[in-house]
Amino acid sequence: MGYYKAVIAYDGTDFLGFQIQAQGRTVQGTLEAALHTLAKQPVRVTGAGRTDTGVHATGQVIGWQLPWQHSTVDLLKAFNANLPQDVAVKELTTTEPGFHPRFSAVSRQYRYTILNQPIRNVLKRQYTALVTQPLSIEAMQAASRCLLGEHDFAAFGRPPQGDNSVRTVTQAVWSRQGPEIYFDITANAFLYRMVRNIVGALIQVGQVSLPQEAIEEVMLSGKRSNAIAPAPPNGLCLIKVNY
Amino acid sequence: MGYYKAVIAYDGTDFLGFQIQAQGRTVQGTLEAALHTLAKQPVRVTGAGRTDTGVHATGQVIGWQLPWQHSTVDLLKAFNANLPQDVAVKELTTTEPGFHPRFSAVSRQYRYTILNQPIRNVLKRQYTALVTQPLSIEAMQAASRCLLGEHDFAAFGRPPQGDNSVRTVTQAVWSRQGPEIYFDITANAFLYRMVRNIVGALIQVGQVSLPQEAIEEVMLSGKRSNAIAPAPPNGLCLIKVNY
Repeated sequence: MGYYKAVIAYDGTDFLGFQIQAQGRTVQGTLEAALHTLAKQPVRVTGAGRTDTGVHATGQVIGWQLPWQHSTVDLLKAFNANLPQDVAVKELTTTEPGFHPRFSAVSRQYRYTILNQPIRNVLKRQYTALVTQPLSIEAMQAASRCLLGEHDFAAFGRPPQGDNSVRTVTQAVWSRQGPEIYFDITANAFLYRMVRNIVGALIQVGQVSLPQEAIEEVMLSGKRSNAIAPAPPNGLCLIKVNY
Repeated sequence: MGYYKAVIAYDGTDFLGFQIQAQGRTVQGTLEAALHTLAKQPVRVTGAGRTDTGVHATGQVIGWQLPWQHSTVDLLKAFNANLPQDVAVKELTTTEPGFHPRFSAVSRQYRYTILNQPIRNVLKRQYTALVTQPLSIEAMQAASRCLLGEHDFAAFGRPPQGDNSVRTVTQAVWSRQGPEIYFDITANAFLYRMVRNIVGALIQVGQVSLPQEAIEEVMLSGKRSNAIAPAPPNGLCLIKVNY
């Protein structure tokens, strides 16, 4: 039995998220089906982050065990050949038996991409969230500073069962390139919908419909606010997992 | 009755090309349905270029007549609001009655985008053609020079009924940005599948499976070669129409 890990990318548009479900097309289910074909036996795949329905990844990390007689280069080719066009294995290596994509990870980086222009871009609509009103990234950047460090993020998301909602954010940076605005956020781990809820609130700050201080107030309140809608999933992408 | 023209963009992935057909989803049919809703009467739309199934556009030009009491800004908003997410009107103006998007055009520019890397990019797969083998853009550029000027392009495409196959190419330039390779080609007009057939042949030159001189030989022969497969439609985009 070999122990393997891989960096994978997927277009989340046509997936009901990463995690396998009884019904519906998931990334994990698709990966396991491809490895089942190669191994001629069921294979369990674990992932570093359980991305939500419609969320993309260019740097998701997965791990699995497999009886495989050939090289890792051959496994990468065979794996890709058995996957649909919206999933790809970018790098593949052997690993030690103790490696766990989720529990061994020390941090995750997500990027949220906003397209800030008056009219939709048909070729980017699946990978960006359109905001037609002008946004002040200076205001969004200023409001993001309070996120840095260890905080209880209960106001911005729900932890997995049995876990608390304290997380440590080490990066929260806004940048702009032409009409595209990026939010790069890194934390040891994220709560369910945490990035989308934070971005949803920060977009309101950027539109000056919420004061900069509101982000810290919401965070410190520890309570979800109905006034803040999560930003749409298609702007979000899991960029990198660090070990 | 007002005369209007617009620059539009569309994602060709889910369209059976621009031109309306008895069956199937087309760009023209989608545009006409949206204007029919606004005008409460049938509206005929004409386009500058009849892009093929799966081909994209960021600079297609269309024209139509419409009884409309409000401003062009309002018409642009109402038009976009009635279109699906994979079509967008970028600019809209009034025009003179004699304007015809196709016959008034003096040239069209297309861009073909190749993604030249070993593994597919899941987020760009719908808008680029993947070529996994290394390509020499120097060889492709050298082989493209013979295309410039007025030639009979019968070897690379079929003219509309009643027309000849002589066209004038004024630009044929290859460039590279990271793993993406672009081919920008401008001509007074194009034959059916002309860009895809030319790119298909030039990719073979880039892979050194066809000598540079073959492009000129094929062109001068005036005969379609079975050895040359058209490049896939998803890499092609109508960028600009000049008047």
